[in-house]
Amino acid sequence: MVKRKIHVAVLGATGSVGQRFVQLLDNHPWFHVAALTGSDKSVGKYYVEACRWNLPEPMPEWARGMVVQPTSPENLEVALAFSALPAEQAKTVEPAFAMAGIGVCSNASAFRRETDVPILLPEVNADHASVIEVQRANRGWRGFIVTNPNCTSTGMTVALKPMIDYFGISKVFVVSLQALSGAGFGAEGVPSMDIVDNVIPYIKGEEEKLEWEPRKMLGKYHKEGFDLADFRVSAHTNRVQVSDGHLVCLSIELSKKAEPQEIVEVIKNYSLLPEIADLPSAPKPVLLVKEEPDRPQPRLDRMTGRGMSTVVGRIRKDPLFDVRMIVLSHNTIRGAAGGAIFNAELLVKYGYL
Amino acid sequence: MVKRKIHVAVLGATGSVGQRFVQLLDNHPWFHVAALTGSDKSVGKYYVEACRWNLPEPMPEWARGMVVQPTSPENLEVALAFSALPAEQAKTVEPAFAMAGIGVCSNASAFRRETDVPILLPEVNADHASVIEVQRANRGWRGFIVTNPNCTSTGMTVALKPMIDYFGISKVFVVSLQALSGAGFGAEGVPSMDIVDNVIPYIKGEEEKLEWEPRKMLGKYHKEGFDLADFRVSAHTNRVQVSDGHLVCLSIELSKKAEPQEIVEVIKNYSLLPEIADLPSAPKPVLLVKEEPDRPQPRLDRMTGRGMSTVVGRIRKDPLFDVRMIVLSHNTIRGAAGGAIFNAELLVKYGYL
Amino acid sequence: MVKRKIHVAVLGATGSVGQRFVQLLDNHPWFHVAALTGSDKSVGKYYVEACRWNLPEPMPEWARGMVVQPTSPENLEVALAFSALPAEQAKTVEPAFAMAGIGVCSNASAFRRETDVPILLPEVNADHASVIEVQRANRGWRGFIVTNPNCTSTGMTVALKPMIDYFGISKVFVVSLQALSGAGFGAEGVPSMDIVDNVIPYIKGEEEKLEWEPRKMLGKYHKEGFDLADFRVSAHTNRVQVSDGHLVCLSIELSKKAEPQEIVEVIKNYSLLPEIADLPSAPKPVLLVKEEPDRPQPRLDRMTGRGMSTVVGRIRKDPLFDVRMIVLSHNTIRGAAGGAIFNAELLVKYGYL
Amino acid sequence: MVKRKIHVAVLGATGSVGQRFVQLLDNHPWFHVAALTGSDKSVGKYYVEACRWNLPEPMPEWARGMVVQPTSPENLEVALAFSALPAEQAKTVEPAFAMAGIGVCSNASAFRRETDVPILLPEVNADHASVIEVQRANRGWRGFIVTNPNCTSTGMTVALKPMIDYFGISKVFVVSLQALSGAGFGAEGVPSMDIVDNVIPYIKGEEEKLEWEPRKMLGKYHKEGFDLADFRVSAHTNRVQVSDGHLVCLSIELSKKAEPQEIVEVIKNYSLLPEIADLPSAPKPVLLVKEEPDRPQPRLDRMTGRGMSTVVGRIRKDPLFDVRMIVLSHNTIRGAAGGAIFNAELLVKYGYL
Repeated sequence: MVKRKIHVAVLGATGSVGQRFVQLLDNHPWFHVAALTGSDKSVGKYYVEACRWNLPEPMPEWARGMVVQPTSPENLEVALAFSALPAEQAKTVEPAFAMAGIGVCSNASAFRRETDVPILLPEVNADHASVIEVQRANRGWRGFIVTNPNCTSTGMTVALKPMIDYFGISKVFVVSLQALSGAGFGAEGVPSMDIVDNVIPYIKGEEEKLEWEPRKMLGKYHKEGFDLADFRVSAHTNRVQVSDGHLVCLSIELSKKAEPQEIVEVIKNYSLLPEIADLPSAPKPVLLVKEEPDRPQPRLDRMTGRGMSTVVGRIRKDPLFDVRMIVLSHNTIRGAAGGAIFNAELLVKYGYL
Repeated sequence: MVKRKIHVAVLGATGSVGQRFVQLLDNHPWFHVAALTGSDKSVGKYYVEACRWNLPEPMPEWARGMVVQPTSPENLEVALAFSALPAEQAKTVEPAFAMAGIGVCSNASAFRRETDVPILLPEVNADHASVIEVQRANRGWRGFIVTNPNCTSTGMTVALKPMIDYFGISKVFVVSLQALSGAGFGAEGVPSMDIVDNVIPYIKGEEEKLEWEPRKMLGKYHKEGFDLADFRVSAHTNRVQVSDGHLVCLSIELSKKAEPQEIVEVIKNYSLLPEIADLPSAPKPVLLVKEEPDRPQPRLDRMTGRGMSTVVGRIRKDPLFDVRMIVLSHNTIRGAAGGAIFNAELLVKYGYL
Repeated sequence: MVKRKIHVAVLGATGSVGQRFVQLLDNHPWFHVAALTGSDKSVGKYYVEACRWNLPEPMPEWARGMVVQPTSPENLEVALAFSALPAEQAKTVEPAFAMAGIGVCSNASAFRRETDVPILLPEVNADHASVIEVQRANRGWRGFIVTNPNCTSTGMTVALKPMIDYFGISKVFVVSLQALSGAGFGAEGVPSMDIVDNVIPYIKGEEEKLEWEPRKMLGKYHKEGFDLADFRVSAHTNRVQVSDGHLVCLSIELSKKAEPQEIVEVIKNYSLLPEIADLPSAPKPVLLVKEEPDRPQPRLDRMTGRGMSTVVGRIRKDPLFDVRMIVLSHNTIRGAAGGAIFNAELLVKYGYL
Repeated sequence: MVKRKIHVAVLGATGSVGQRFVQLLDNHPWFHVAALTGSDKSVGKYYVEACRWNLPEPMPEWARGMVVQPTSPENLEVALAFSALPAEQAKTVEPAFAMAGIGVCSNASAFRRETDVPILLPEVNADHASVIEVQRANRGWRGFIVTNPNCTSTGMTVALKPMIDYFGISKVFVVSLQALSGAGFGAEGVPSMDIVDNVIPYIKGEEEKLEWEPRKMLGKYHKEGFDLADFRVSAHTNRVQVSDGHLVCLSIELSKKAEPQEIVEVIKNYSLLPEIADLPSAPKPVLLVKEEPDRPQPRLDRMTGRGMSTVVGRIRKDPLFDVRMIVLSHNTIRGAAGGAIFNAELLVKYGYL
């Protein structure tokens, strides 16, 4: 479908999410990485020197010798930028890229709450892509900003989608057991002395995201903005000693009563439009239901569908609400870099790139 | 108060809870360990040989040379037995001890659901001790069986107590992050390959206990049995890589609305009757409220009050119910051996021993 | 080269090494798994039910519905058996297979010390394969037993090979930091309470293997048996909290002095005969030298060469001997199942199968 | 012996070693903490606010409300300063304190290589304390600088002491498995993503210390400086997932041959002069020999002698040298803050304070 590869930049390429972008874009059928950007202390260095690579997959050969560029649209000959920037920096940098005609698929939280910026999950709300048109009209941009959700919101929202479609949802309790990579790899991440023989029952700003983002994604878009989906969420978030893979415990009150077995069926049967299912990064399967009583588990199940699938287990009756379950999603693949790439593929398909 | 020390036995003394009994009974002011019992393969050996001691505290000198006895009331000259037996074995063995005139303070789950056996937490339901009288009448025992709750029920129930007293409770959502020692130390415990870089989102039989035991403990006793407290619980239980200390995330719907700050006050002001507060193993404080946003944490807070206190933190408004919080309790001390010893002290005080 | 796939059995297929055999044999170009065997409690069950699969890679579809067979050559229509049996069982079972005309590539230690059984590493001592002829003559077998070394001996021996060839070796000091999977996955493995916030500085029987096996593999074969290579080894072995990947610290005294840089060159230039390098499981590269000061590391480097490469780092002068370094090898792939499969491929190539 | 408590300062009190000083000095019989110092960003704050306390033992009440002072001798009314400063800062700050008449017991490495500064372990080289006199003469100080060794050198040197006394030592191989707390608690420490399911086989600058410091401590002092003990050391250092407690594997060549059992006896019988053994922080026992094949282990044995004892195990014949063993020592207690306090007690006893 794509004749010549689209030239892309990875913004903030040396950090943990930036590294995942570089790894996942290796041999991508549609995208060619033309630029890697970094902070002042990295600019001008070879990527292999600027970056403390911390993935088991080796750094792609082509990336090693690329010279890190400043994070600015000038002199970058790209049509698309994947942003792994911190939220604060994203606030000013991403609009500059969009203004310069570059599409930005961002993992940052900076614009997720804007009324003309979608939080996009192709499995869930592909139709929200059209908000780009309103965004361009509002802001006079030739490019755009499209965000993917917080890594923990991701799996939860994918799992809720078939239930809201079939039964409606009124209340959700969610408790997360989150992986360390979500906080970053180095000094910015979780110190090891905090996590040895321990759990950290707090992640700054995370609970607010889980209580809001799924409602926007599962809501309806119209000209003036988003109607949030009409359910409420209570979230507790915890950091545990896992490298990758966020697990959440969910209890859900449905609008229309349903038995666990009906919910299992609805989740198992959930499928994507062929145009989405055929995208290079589309999860196969979208949702996997594990039957064993003690699954999914992060170490064993996070790489399902090359890290893009959402894995569900322990679907059972809830004594307070209707149903409870656990959901696992790979936080740096499906929940971050892989999600943004999947979004970009959708936007190519839909003609926004 | 106690002139001569009461002779006690530890039943199942070589396992993880048995070891904690031995460690905590070292230098106990009221109790003298006169017997340690074990399974056939341990009987006749010195304790130091029969037992693969796995506590950082050293094995008490007096225990090393004790010869492990069969787990049977014959030939044991004790007034009290602390039971660390597996549930299945407890079913037949504990009644034999009670019939022989020996009081049994049991950590096993075998009798917790009996209508004439209390699940006792001195901080919560000291009055349930009087069920012993009904039990003796019903069963013709001169001894008794008194149980302590499941290790995860323990902290949760202590934390709920001031709230049920002041505001009433209608619903509780609980998700646990449980320590490895709760499953045992050796081959019976969690295999290391299950927990490295992982979480196990399932603990067999545990959720049922969390959904029922607190209701019995917080309920009312009368001649015919227990009226369970009138609230419902939904529990998800998880095993995480922590040696000791069970953490639970709680969301609570109260019968009478209250602001988080009122709940903080009620928990901080909760105190014990002097007769209970003065018992040798009484927690000091009973409940500790941490103010830091990321506490309690297992590694840092589990030994509060020598492992007997219940530590609460992150008391805040809940978007679905009224209040949410996290609670930490040491699972092999407050939640097992220490709890049973505390129970025994209460029963001495009340004249049942 | 192979027209029809060779039918093979995996003996002891439900354990940790057995699972690796099944995973690695999925889509093998030369071997077709025709039988999976297990203990009495597994026999007759489907593999998916008999086996508590503990690998992140999914169980191959073809394996799920295979019925577990008894571990005996009768009724098994195979030319080759991969043995993941415990040493004790291997002692009697493996000769029965060899007698029945079946070649056995064994991961068990039972026959490693026999004078007519090779411990084979194709990168190191492919010529020892010819011991099979003596073995058949001695024992009247139509099949054979060929072993692969202990998982920790493996990486160490591959790394020593270029040094012994170029400079000779007189003394080796080795300290291991070994992964948990080496001890097994379940109750037979390391209990989690032994390894949380801990190191176990002892692995039963392991040091003896490290002090002897490399000398046999690096020694010379002649009609009457093996002349052990003329160096001595001192080994300390430790278990650390790593899932897969054994790391060893080596200090080496050479027969002929050499500078670290010469050793780096010799290791980097070590290559295999084309007939070995082209085998399906041959490591690519055989030996990888990492330049970073803190590599190799188990999590990041164990999957080098699909888990078959030996990764070396920190090659530097030793104050007591000549050179020191660290070596990493994947213990259940290169050091166990993958190694045995590589051996089998060599034996096919050499015409023993 | 001490009538009024000596006023002391803790320099760099907010870091990991600083916190240990504060914790260990709580209720010290001879020392009163009169000042806590910190960096610019901490100065002027209450200690409880300036410090992210990361010890399971609670912050002493008296420390919470102390105002953090600048790290400078002016305005500090103390006779003694415990230094937990980074090496670079220690270079200029510690001499300023010594010049101002204050004794400095330093955990920093800055002055360990000076010819008139002792590296002191009261169990090993209490006589080196007299170097203070030369130091004062050389430098015109009324105060002094005395250092304790690197945390990993500590246990190793204590263990070597009886062997060098009885048999002489010519060569030592040492491989360490070091705890995370040695690198610090927060962003300066080991990132969690580096240690989950991993080992870091490199600690910057550490091997050089292990190869030199024990030789100075076990050497002889005379007017012109130190004669290093006449043995050589080869060290490999590794970081593993343990919170506290450094384990080392040692292989030792003795000058005079001895059997392992003789070495066990010599280590078991090693004792201190009564004047040292009676110091408040003296380890009891100095050296503990564990008989179990798999001990010492960090989690179980690090608190032996309140974290001040050196624990030895697996004393056995070495195939290359004479004897091998493992040694465990608590790195932030015996190997850092506790060691400096023990040194200060010795210097009080000897009249230097």
